[in-house]
Amino acid sequence: MQTDPSALVRNVNDLVEGLKSGDRRAIARLISLVEDGAPQASAVLREVYPLTGHASTVGLTGAPGAGKSTIIDGLVKRMRAADMSVGVIACDPTSPFSGGALLGDRVRMQEHALDEKVFIRSMATRGHLGGLSLAAPEAMRVLEAGGSQVVVVETVGVGQSEVEVARQADTTIVVLAPGMGDAVQAAKAGILEVADIFCVNKSDKEGTKSVARDLRGMLELGHGRDVDWTPPIIVTSATSDTGLDELWDAIRSHEQHLRSEGRLEARRRERLGFEIREIVGERMKQALDQAAGDAFEKVTDEVLERKIDPYTAAAELLERFGLGSVSP
Amino acid sequence: MQTDPSALVRNVNDLVEGLKSGDRRAIARLISLVEDGAPQASAVLREVYPLTGHASTVGLTGAPGAGKSTIIDGLVKRMRAADMSVGVIACDPTSPFSGGALLGDRVRMQEHALDEKVFIRSMATRGHLGGLSLAAPEAMRVLEAGGSQVVVVETVGVGQSEVEVARQADTTIVVLAPGMGDAVQAAKAGILEVADIFCVNKSDKEGTKSVARDLRGMLELGHGRDVDWTPPIIVTSATSDTGLDELWDAIRSHEQHLRSEGRLEARRRERLGFEIREIVGERMKQALDQAAGDAFEKVTDEVLERKIDPYTAAAELLERFGLGSVSP
Repeated sequence: MQTDPSALVRNVNDLVEGLKSGDRRAIARLISLVEDGAPQASAVLREVYPLTGHASTVGLTGAPGAGKSTIIDGLVKRMRAADMSVGVIACDPTSPFSGGALLGDRVRMQEHALDEKVFIRSMATRGHLGGLSLAAPEAMRVLEAGGSQVVVVETVGVGQSEVEVARQADTTIVVLAPGMGDAVQAAKAGILEVADIFCVNKSDKEGTKSVARDLRGMLELGHGRDVDWTPPIIVTSATSDTGLDELWDAIRSHEQHLRSEGRLEARRRERLGFEIREIVGERMKQALDQAAGDAFEKVTDEVLERKIDPYTAAAELLERFGLGSVSP
Repeated sequence: MQTDPSALVRNVNDLVEGLKSGDRRAIARLISLVEDGAPQASAVLREVYPLTGHASTVGLTGAPGAGKSTIIDGLVKRMRAADMSVGVIACDPTSPFSGGALLGDRVRMQEHALDEKVFIRSMATRGHLGGLSLAAPEAMRVLEAGGSQVVVVETVGVGQSEVEVARQADTTIVVLAPGMGDAVQAAKAGILEVADIFCVNKSDKEGTKSVARDLRGMLELGHGRDVDWTPPIIVTSATSDTGLDELWDAIRSHEQHLRSEGRLEARRRERLGFEIREIVGERMKQALDQAAGDAFEKVTDEVLERKIDPYTAAAELLERFGLGSVSP
């Protein structure tokens, strides 16, 4: 790991030059730096961020095994047919993209691996303090700066950070499949509200119709994040390439919808606000160890001895930072 | 939702009185307040925290469908047989405890529902800014203050916040099952490192042996969080109540291990440090909206227009708080 600041900046600058000329190794290296977290991530973002803002982003979330990566595989084909270059970030550790694959899946993916205009990368975020919520959008920007016109992010729809990452895309697809967590369970997990498009996959299996029906019932009860957009329910069988044309059409319709009346800008503004808040929150956590070193140890001891509770401890630390007015 | 501070404090005080006398409705109400997030959560914790510190806590994590709640069901039976009162917090939205159940499962759970010494509660954390990582330990403390001698928390082993919650328990059990995400996938998801005990469930199904063997191989490669403790691998078939005595024995052995040489205290200290950091981070995020209102809008606009990047924006905001030295 790079720690000398000036060497880091030189290194990042070299890699960004490579990135601009579409060097795949530079893209891969920059994403690795982002995974390491700050100061690497902030050095990368400073250079990469100005190069971004034009790509469309698509978030796909759903339970493990719902078929997300097979769907992405089919979407990538259609994006390529429309002559768009595509980047994919897979944050589902059980995804075939991440190597946790049946042989058949892996072979299918390799079709794209030979395509210069497709970049697929799985994401590990152990080093990044902000975890997935910061690392994923940064990696997506590296892909965009490297030339991807569409960037797809795949996450597991059972973790709150994971769902949040998918929600931060321009268009968010929630994938459901019969038996893999039905619509009612997805509602409990809070993933219905984030959907711009629903994809009910595995239409060859029993139960697809009832999942779609339950979903329709719940939508009538007022789920959905955008009053002017009723999320379509697309039924697919990704393994047999059925319904994916409709799904791709739905993505493009949603993009059209966003591009009218300033909706896209409003959504991106909200996303950036979320991201800036996250960065500030993470920096404050780090600052506690540095600036408040001894004080932090001391209040933790007091909490351990049950003299004070964790909220009071946090308030005392904020007071030391001159932030008493922010007390819990 | 309660917003008048003095009414909130009176309300919390009344509920805590009820809690001390073991009133189940008071427990339920306090957990609901915790789910709402601050200021409710901090008011509750101030009263409840001094009453805690004696219960053992057990975290169970694993993929949806691995059989976690059936295992907990069997463990609760054994805890009750040892005359311990038990509290369970279920954070898996697909868990039978949360209502996402097959009929058979629900009926089984209701056995405990009639037992005054068992309190099972599923957790929703929409309102809590800190999400699961703050709400779950707070709810566990409410259960403890209400008389639970063991508190079990169940989370999905595919989300980073969710795994972290299970890791914060005294004893963390990682549940694997053949076909539900094998050992290699669990390794990729980063959940092997958090385990004090492995439970390979569904021993009636094919593949259990290979999961256990893979796991053993990986343990030899140095996974594990405690150099003095090799996580045992317990093979169970929870639906037929097989192996659960061994699992319960392993939990008690690990507790014995922790109680020697100050290990338990060290672990709890680390957990509290994590929690205090989280609270401070959350407070800072809130403060951005309050204290930095206009400044926050302004830098967000600059980021949207790509004049600056999100890290630079965060640095500018920290500067305004007099925290320039904490710059990203």
